[in-house]
Amino acid sequence: MNTPLATWNDRPAKAAILDFVERCTADSSVVPVDQRVAVFDNDGTLWCEKPMPIQLDFILRRLVAMVEEDPGLRSKEPWRAAYERDYAWLASVLHDHYAGDDSNLASLAAGVLAAHADISVERFEELAAEFLHTARHPTLNRSYLQCAYAPMVELLGYLREHGFVTYIASGGGRDFMRPVSEELYGVPRDGVIGSAVALEYSANESGGTITRRATADYLDDGPEKPIRIWDRAGRRPLLAAGNSNGDIEMLDFTQHSDKPYLRLLVLHDDPDREFDYTSGSERALKRAQEKGWTVVSVKDDWKTVF
Amino acid sequence: MNTPLATWNDRPAKAAILDFVERCTADSSVVPVDQRVAVFDNDGTLWCEKPMPIQLDFILRRLVAMVEEDPGLRSKEPWRAAYERDYAWLASVLHDHYAGDDSNLASLAAGVLAAHADISVERFEELAAEFLHTARHPTLNRSYLQCAYAPMVELLGYLREHGFVTYIASGGGRDFMRPVSEELYGVPRDGVIGSAVALEYSANESGGTITRRATADYLDDGPEKPIRIWDRAGRRPLLAAGNSNGDIEMLDFTQHSDKPYLRLLVLHDDPDREFDYTSGSERALKRAQEKGWTVVSVKDDWKTVF
Repeated sequence: MNTPLATWNDRPAKAAILDFVERCTADSSVVPVDQRVAVFDNDGTLWCEKPMPIQLDFILRRLVAMVEEDPGLRSKEPWRAAYERDYAWLASVLHDHYAGDDSNLASLAAGVLAAHADISVERFEELAAEFLHTARHPTLNRSYLQCAYAPMVELLGYLREHGFVTYIASGGGRDFMRPVSEELYGVPRDGVIGSAVALEYSANESGGTITRRATADYLDDGPEKPIRIWDRAGRRPLLAAGNSNGDIEMLDFTQHSDKPYLRLLVLHDDPDREFDYTSGSERALKRAQEKGWTVVSVKDDWKTVF
Repeated sequence: MNTPLATWNDRPAKAAILDFVERCTADSSVVPVDQRVAVFDNDGTLWCEKPMPIQLDFILRRLVAMVEEDPGLRSKEPWRAAYERDYAWLASVLHDHYAGDDSNLASLAAGVLAAHADISVERFEELAAEFLHTARHPTLNRSYLQCAYAPMVELLGYLREHGFVTYIASGGGRDFMRPVSEELYGVPRDGVIGSAVALEYSANESGGTITRRATADYLDDGPEKPIRIWDRAGRRPLLAAGNSNGDIEMLDFTQHSDKPYLRLLVLHDDPDREFDYTSGSERALKRAQEKGWTVVSVKDDWKTVF
């Protein structure tokens, strides 16, 4: 067998992972294989989320295309901001949201939900797959599909080799990630948990169609993450990895009284190889310190990033 | 290898299943393994649903216990009906519902939802597991766990041997079936799709608690079934099996333009070995005839029932 976690530096985070897996698997009575569940946030945990979440780029491009089809949209947010590449407006909405001010969030959300409404789930999948297989990161000089973090991809595989089922519990869209989850992470599409828009089934003579509505079904973030993990897996995970305030409840939820468990929080502190930010992660970092979560430093813990 | 489907008589239904699996698997380019998805309704398709759905028995027993704790409930439906074993009232509510009259359905639904509200999902699982491992069928002289249909259990295993993932797409409760799905059907808990109550996550120092609310999240029936299958599996199934009007959309949804697909509709026509009824299945049987679905006769197609 290869040296496990070769992309990780020999530091406490790597040691904590190896120790956790060893404790879970040394004796199969500790954690029977069917109870080995690990969950991973996606944006900022498994792949890069700066300068903007990759799905937001996908949506903004669609909003621009909508303005080109219907110039009347140009004066309306968020179409205006998308068309004029006014990323400052978009960033301010998210910044205000994290600060508790949602005054512009409704119009952004409405635009986001309208961007791919009224199309079938199969058509949406084609659009997502095409984008993900062709678009490039704006600053890292690589395609989006090369923006997954190599140490986390190795960790996913290492856990599966030891009998774990690995789920992606993303705040991003479930149906956006599914076309590439196997190829990127080795996670089959039924392992992708994420936010979802409301869907509608309509009967027809070709097997019926499921259409995306312009409303949210649920946003898989914060306290919704444990609920959606329960819905999918039916188990309390033993390992959770995240990077932001929206992952706190998911990380808390791994706690067991009678089994090993591990919480990983990725800290983006590497401006040379990736990005350096803690905005949106302040409470999570504080809780990591209080509760002894394992903080994973991109700079120090990862031998390679991509 | 054993003779496949030994619990099935050599008739057209068995031939249709063998032919379908042969067409899917003869050449792996026809249906790559990761696309082999089969979905099964539960009540009346995988196990017995008469004289009442097994989960309804579980709920009624809880309503009786609630009356014993709080006699004031005795005059209120559905606690009164449960306490007095007034199954005629319960049957009339369901009968009226299928006939389009929902005047009593709201009070029944409220009682059903209240029966196991405000407890954790883990506590609910204990209660469901205890009931399912101890309660007996009222007339068949066997425990509920012996009420699964042997030919369908064999079919589930046969499909899995040929690379299919098998899901249970039940109108009944997801969390009710999960504690026994592996033992009964070989379906792990993340393969159980079903109706769900709203859940609430609350943080605490022991990893947080998910609590059942007294409201429905969704009822996995009719046009909701394809949507919840998409949510879980992310694929259009190739095989669907059902027995009632609530399964029509799920069976329709299996249709593909470029791959084999099969729809099975179980017909309960065996009063000696099981039950004989078509109530609640009238539209499904009509559609089976129109669309060439494979009707599975309990009496003629199954060598053994349990």
